[in-house]
Amino acid sequence: ITSKLPNVGTTIFTVMSAMANEYGAINLSQGFPNFPTSERLNDLVTEHLRVGHNQYAPMMGVRELQEQIAHKIKLMYGVEVDPIQEVTITSGATEGLFTSIAALVHRGEEVIILEPAYDSYRPAIEVVGGVPVIYQLFAPDFKIDWDAVQALITERTRMIVINTPTNPTGAAFSPEDMQALERITADTNILVLSDEVYEHLIYDGLEHQSVLRYPKLRERSLAVYSFGKTFHKTGWRIGYCVAPPELTAEFRKVHQFNTFSINTPIQYALADFLKDPREYLELPDFFQKKRDFFLQQLEGSRLKPLTCSGTYFHLFDYSEISDMPEREFAAWMTREIGVAAIPVSAFYSNGHNNGVIRLCFAKTESTLKAATERLQSM
Amino acid sequence: ITSKLPNVGTTIFTVMSAMANEYGAINLSQGFPNFPTSERLNDLVTEHLRVGHNQYAPMMGVRELQEQIAHKIKLMYGVEVDPIQEVTITSGATEGLFTSIAALVHRGEEVIILEPAYDSYRPAIEVVGGVPVIYQLFAPDFKIDWDAVQALITERTRMIVINTPTNPTGAAFSPEDMQALERITADTNILVLSDEVYEHLIYDGLEHQSVLRYPKLRERSLAVYSFGKTFHKTGWRIGYCVAPPELTAEFRKVHQFNTFSINTPIQYALADFLKDPREYLELPDFFQKKRDFFLQQLEGSRLKPLTCSGTYFHLFDYSEISDMPEREFAAWMTREIGVAAIPVSAFYSNGHNNGVIRLCFAKTESTLKAATERLQSM
Ligand SMILES: CSCCC(=O)C(=O)O
Ligand SMILES: CSCCC(=O)C(=O)O
Repeated sequence: ITSKLPNVGTTIFTVMSAMANEYGAINLSQGFPNFPTSERLNDLVTEHLRVGHNQYAPMMGVRELQEQIAHKIKLMYGVEVDPIQEVTITSGATEGLFTSIAALVHRGEEVIILEPAYDSYRPAIEVVGGVPVIYQLFAPDFKIDWDAVQALITERTRMIVINTPTNPTGAAFSPEDMQALERITADTNILVLSDEVYEHLIYDGLEHQSVLRYPKLRERSLAVYSFGKTFHKTGWRIGYCVAPPELTAEFRKVHQFNTFSINTPIQYALADFLKDPREYLELPDFFQKKRDFFLQQLEGSRLKPLTCSGTYFHLFDYSEISDMPEREFAAWMTREIGVAAIPVSAFYSNGHNNGVIRLCFAKTESTLKAATERLQSM
Repeated sequence: ITSKLPNVGTTIFTVMSAMANEYGAINLSQGFPNFPTSERLNDLVTEHLRVGHNQYAPMMGVRELQEQIAHKIKLMYGVEVDPIQEVTITSGATEGLFTSIAALVHRGEEVIILEPAYDSYRPAIEVVGGVPVIYQLFAPDFKIDWDAVQALITERTRMIVINTPTNPTGAAFSPEDMQALERITADTNILVLSDEVYEHLIYDGLEHQSVLRYPKLRERSLAVYSFGKTFHKTGWRIGYCVAPPELTAEFRKVHQFNTFSINTPIQYALADFLKDPREYLELPDFFQKKRDFFLQQLEGSRLKPLTCSGTYFHLFDYSEISDMPEREFAAWMTREIGVAAIPVSAFYSNGHNNGVIRLCFAKTESTLKAATERLQSM
């Protein structure tokens, strides 16, 4: 067999979580919470299992959930979306990203990615014969020069992938970033694939810059969201994609033959759960406290924090400790210090090394305490 | 936007289920059960939700479930599979099929499909730039002439898709079919994608012909299964793919960027549930009784049954009632008679009309009774 993805190995998240298990390290690598998560939401699933909501949901999603999502979008971003024609429930944001690319990127078309980037974008493009075009950002501030991005646009550019708040950097796009994106895509046929899975994880009073708030972006965008990230159930595999009707129509042509439909009882449960907006409105505060606690516990350590404006990831410069490359350092730290991290180089196609690691702070205070004690010892 | 799948509309299952709802018809179209399904299995999910199994499962699946699947395969087909290297949990069999094709079919490569065929195979091939090569089978017996299939093989043939027991025909492959498939693929690099979602729905003492039982097929096959079909929870979206390590490695390269991982509490629940083989060993008897009841209730009607050796679908020739094309007849029947069916022409790329409809008998006795009373009135 000739591999279609010869350069793809096992994702770094699988690798580092496995290494954490192997060495009994505290796992701050893969992004998932370890605190107790909503029992009410569990109970709602149980209720719908019992009621007998166990057969195929509609391919586009359960109507009640589509409608609750439209309400949430109205409340968060002040815009109306059509629940039936613009909202499709997906098997996590990952499927939303994959299906968007598979449905809309033709062979030979170029897709611009800003690296460091979540590791699924590139192979999704390659598997359908698209051409990734990489624009690299660097530590410590990962600033985007939009003129440089514009310079990468050719007549074959089909899509730009953005991600705000940004995994792994913890950056958050500003209104100026969004306006620049509007400007460089104006008068083009370029689509925007907007990974907004951390929409509710944004700090210091910043506002999430959703493409949905920018009419000129919205009309060309597929925006992808995750209930796993938002409600701390990353193992449930449910998210959604919001896009204008014509893009949604193409999206669903692939979705219906890829995963067909999404878990029915969980869809009904989320439709009920979303009725209380506090469940998501309180998230920035909740996670900002975790971030601040984590940083405070690390004060005086030889890991130097970069800036984290969003997501539940924090980058740290470890140059005072070692000059190992990131992968080696992360492996060493897992083994010897007992805390697993993600090497940021895994988010660059060419493995660029900033000398920084990513730590996930979506953990209980006691986990963060135990981890930071170990990290202080380096 | 130029569509990548210009000929794809909404799947026939969505169309007919929507029409059934619109007209309040009894829905014997889309294949899902309407009888009460295992409460024990629901309770197991609840248990694992409560225990806190709510974060990402491993990308390839929960180890306990992979192992239980290997046990089941041993018990059913007498062969050993390596749970870790050969079993991957998927978001329903649909994702298993899509991911197999996306991972292994390169642009320009040909994939042989035997029609009438499940409607997802063809668009999955097309979206990655593969070329579907169609071999048509016809009512009443849908017999496969394997020499004719062999004649379709070229040096660009990458894959043959098979499906036994077969949706929509209700046929089941014989050992001779499997031997013929072995013969025509011997000394080729052709892969076999084997859709075995109805493995437990086989009647009249026939044995399911899994590719796993034929070593020469097994080494070139991806076999796809569905817990939704087997345990009557089509809305849960969980299945699995069994393939030799080298094929599994390629499969997972796409799976990990398509859906990443599958619902965690459901995986643990199924691992527990599979410990009692009666849950699946009793299925042929259970469904054969339904088939026989259904046929008996239709005795004397003007719908003429074809042969059903497997699946929970039965085909009927309606030529005594009408000479409308199938789509028109199915729509008319839904509207006027109050029973929704699937036109088999939807399973042919060229819409071939045999003058037969497909009815799903995975229903309660009272539903089957009510439906057959209406059908008797035609
Ligand atoms: C799908 S596993 C990756 C989880 C995650 O988003 C991350 O750790 O970056
Ligand atoms: C995924 S909806 C189709 C269900 C089914 O397998 C059928 O009705 O043939």
